[in-house]
Order: sequence, then structure tokens, then C-alpha cells
Amino acid sequence: MFFGGIEAGGTKFIVGIGDSSGLITDHVEIPTTSPGETISIVVDYFLAKRKSIKIDRIGLASFGPVDLNPKSTTYGYITNTPKLDWMNFDILHELEKALLIPVVIDTDVNAAALAEYEWGAAQGKDPIVYLTVGTGIGGGVIVNGKPLHGLSHPEIGHLRIRQSKIDYKFSGICPFHKNCMEGLASGPAIFARWGVLGQDLSPDHIGWELEAEYLAEGISNLILTISPEIIILGGGVMKNDFLFPMIRRKVKENLNNYVTKKEILDCNDVYIIPPGLKSFSGLAGAIALASDN
Amino acid sequence: MFFGGIEAGGTKFIVGIGDSSGLITDHVEIPTTSPGETISIVVDYFLAKRKSIKIDRIGLASFGPVDLNPKSTTYGYITNTPKLDWMNFDILHELEKALLIPVVIDTDVNAAALAEYEWGAAQGKDPIVYLTVGTGIGGGVIVNGKPLHGLSHPEIGHLRIRQSKIDYKFSGICPFHKNCMEGLASGPAIFARWGVLGQDLSPDHIGWELEAEYLAEGISNLILTISPEIIILGGGVMKNDFLFPMIRRKVKENLNNYVTKKEILDCNDVYIIPPGLKSFSGLAGAIALASDN
Repeated sequence: MFFGGIEAGGTKFIVGIGDSSGLITDHVEIPTTSPGETISIVVDYFLAKRKSIKIDRIGLASFGPVDLNPKSTTYGYITNTPKLDWMNFDILHELEKALLIPVVIDTDVNAAALAEYEWGAAQGKDPIVYLTVGTGIGGGVIVNGKPLHGLSHPEIGHLRIRQSKIDYKFSGICPFHKNCMEGLASGPAIFARWGVLGQDLSPDHIGWELEAEYLAEGISNLILTISPEIIILGGGVMKNDFLFPMIRRKVKENLNNYVTKKEILDCNDVYIIPPGLKSFSGLAGAIALASDN
Repeated sequence: MFFGGIEAGGTKFIVGIGDSSGLITDHVEIPTTSPGETISIVVDYFLAKRKSIKIDRIGLASFGPVDLNPKSTTYGYITNTPKLDWMNFDILHELEKALLIPVVIDTDVNAAALAEYEWGAAQGKDPIVYLTVGTGIGGGVIVNGKPLHGLSHPEIGHLRIRQSKIDYKFSGICPFHKNCMEGLASGPAIFARWGVLGQDLSPDHIGWELEAEYLAEGISNLILTISPEIIILGGGVMKNDFLFPMIRRKVKENLNNYVTKKEILDCNDVYIIPPGLKSFSGLAGAIALASDN
């Protein structure tokens, strides 16, 4: 039994085919341009694949925010995105209409969390949080084996965090909230503050202290709220793996022996860790959405 | 079928009897003194009741933190409490040994959340958050109909929030974190800051603006994390019901049209609301723990 997966990102789409064991048998990347152009290439990919294999369902792991409430009139729409071409685009039904098979939608980060839970670094843990730190910051949450939805879906990137006193000159770059976590700690925030890309800051640059501090602010509050059994940090910024021990130390300081669990007190590499599926969390998550539903 | 309920609070215990419809047929209050003395009065209450009715299970809604991990060697213990008499007290097994029936434990606030979900103001909503603002601040969370646990349990009172610039003189009173939400916005924090009890501050005192701001900081982050379908605010401080519209307005400002849901944008009394079960959320929650398990 095969499933299709679409990781719909703001820069590129990754589409592919996989099975319920998480094996990905094929994948291609498509640049994100206009909805019409990008979706038509996605549709062509699956139409071509279906000549040789049967695809039962497609999972769609979308950038967001997306409307995930099946009772809503805008269910399956990308809603409030700064990518204006895509705002209020009915991505779910456009795909279903063109392909005539069921499409299961969730946020890219909920899907990535699901993939890490089923096949990656979070197996056997519940609840779990997956956070990606890159062009934006986003978070997915699995509770009782399922992605968390409610009034909407988690929007962890926009957590209100405490700004460091030494960072007083920087007002933050989030168009909605200025100095939320994304506004202070995303890749573009690093660039806006220092005038260079993160990859060009040396590991001992004070910017990384700030970065670890801001991510630790958000993560500490996630621990106090969701009490996850594991926290996965992915995305381009987290490829700077020296950030992990810095973040663990700051989280421990923040909680100050209130949550007396060795996972937090020991600061070792068991609780706040990189993705097990590397850069495939998103596509694997899309396939997991399809195979679970 | 009858169930026992124990709301174990830092000031008093409320014990009672109820059924699986949430009907409470009897209850008494017991002052919290030493563990030995308080528990022996609790035990005597249930032993006396069992002369006339059969009690199948007892739910224990405890102040905390408590160890809720059944695999842990300190499962059922009150752990890190500032009430030193009760620190590391094995409340669960002391009760089971004395009464020889199963006791189901959770935090007082998870239990209150469960009661509001089953019988109170949060019926039909999922996920939900219950926050109590009084001597301390605590929060319970229901997801997929069940109290949320993980590495530990939610400790929402200790969220790190942004302190107001006008409040710069106040360092906060939390013994672990100083200026966490509990350290800035609990009843004792109000007293420490203004030198009078909340009940003696007039409704137009600037202290209430600060109070609403701090609670809105925490609640905004809860919305961005758990995306609850409803948020219940109970506890002594929230008896000042003029706080509700102030909090709703500040939450809307914080989210700044990013979460475009009418529940948030309209600021009316459907989303951030008082408990439906009034001061019985805790005891009813204890009974719900017993009747659900």
C-alpha cells in the first residue's frame, strides 16, 4: 500500500511516495512559485506515478497558518500567510479536485512531529514537541499519538518571550508581533540583527548566546505547559549543533530545580535533541498523515 | 455506584462522595495541618461513610508538584512543595494502605479541568485549559478527554512571562523563579507589591491592569501552544470578575490578528470564562478521576 506525501514549504515543495513503515521510495523538489504553477507540477507528479502504482491517500504537510477545522467553511485553506499569493488559497480541495483521492492536511510541523514520533527520534515518547528554527520558527505537538489541534493549531514560533537586556537595540522582525520568538530568533532575525547570515557568525559570537537564550525561553515554557517527554529541534539554524548544549544549560537554569527530572538536570543529549529523520521529517510526516488516516 | 473524592489543598482538604454524573452527595472540609493528622481525619471520614454505602474508588486531586509517573519509585508522592511537612510524602499509598481501595491521583488543577470538561463550562470542548489564580497559580490541561501528563505534568503557574516596565521595582515572590507568572500575579504577589490584599484594591487600581496584563501574557502563550477550545479561569483572584474583559482585551492585543478566530477577536464571554462548577471544580474533579478510571 502506497501513500503520497507533500511537504508544502514557503521556498520549496517536496513531494514523494512512501509506505506505512516510513520508507520513502521516491521524492522530488519543486520550487514554490504561484499556487497555480506549483500545484500543477505537484499534480503532474502524482498523475505520472499513478500510471505504475496505486496511491491510496495523500498527506499534505503545509506551511501555515492553515484552517484545520473540518466544520469551517475555509477548511483546508492556507490563511494568514505573509506570502500573499497563497493567502486564502484552498490547497486541500484544489489537490483533491485534481487528483480525485483523499488528501489529509496538517501543519508542516505537526506532520514532522508525527514522523519523528512514529519513525524518528521520538519513538516511544508521548507527548512530544517538534520545533523547527529556520526561515521561520514553528512547532508541532503530538499528544496521545495524534497531532494537537484545538481552536486552531499550535503557533509556537509566535510565543511571547523575554527579550535580553543586551539586545535592547533590536526590535524584532515578526510582522505580527515584532519581538516574539520568531521575531527574535529565526534565521532572518539573526541576519537583521548582525547584518550577516548565521552561517557567517563564528560559534563564539555573542549572537549564539542570545539565540540559545531565546530558544530556551520558549522551550522552558513548553516544558511548563505540555510537559513533553522529548523535544526535537530541527531546521537550518539548529544545524549549528553547538547550540544544543547551550540551550539545555539555559533551560535547566530557567527551571531552577523546579522540574526535578534527570532529563532536564543532566543536560545530556536525550531530551532536547536533533531530528532522527534529518531533513526528511516533513515529507515523512506527510506520508504518516496519509497512512494514519 | 459511588466514588470518593479528595481535593488536597495547601490550606484545606475537601473530601466528599459523588457519582459518575457529577452529583456530590456529601462533603466536608478539613484544615491542612501535618500529613499524619490531616490524612487520619480523611481516612476516618471514608471509613464512617463506608458503613452505609459502597465506595468503589477514590480520586485524589492534590496540590503539587506530584509524581504521576506509575513507573517511578516515588509515584504518588508530593515532591517539591514549599510546605516542608508534605515534601516527599507518599500521599497516594498512605491512603490506599489505610482504606484498602484504589486511589487515582492527579494534580488538583488537572482534576478541576476534567470536572469542567465533563460537567462544567468546558463540556464539548477539547483541548481545554483550567487556570486557578489564588494563593498560587496552577493550570490543568485536558487533551482528547484526558488530563495531560508527560515528563511530569503542566506547571503553568511558573511560566516565564514579560514583566511590565512600570512594575520594575517588584522582583516577584516565587521561591524558585522570582518573577514567573505565579511570582508576579498570584494573590500573595499582589499583597507583596501593594501592601494590601487584592480584595482591598479598588477595581480601578493600576494593580488590576498589571494583573490582567500578566495573566494575558501567560494565556496568550497557552493559546499559541495548546490552542485550547476554551480557557477557564478560577481561584480567589478571579472572583474579581472585572478582570475577565480586561484579560480578553489584552490577549487579543497580544495575538494582534495572528490567530483570526472570533472567539479571540470578539472578546466576549465565550472563550476565557469562569468555572461552571464554581468552587466545586476541585472536589468534582477528584470524583471524575475516580469515575473515569
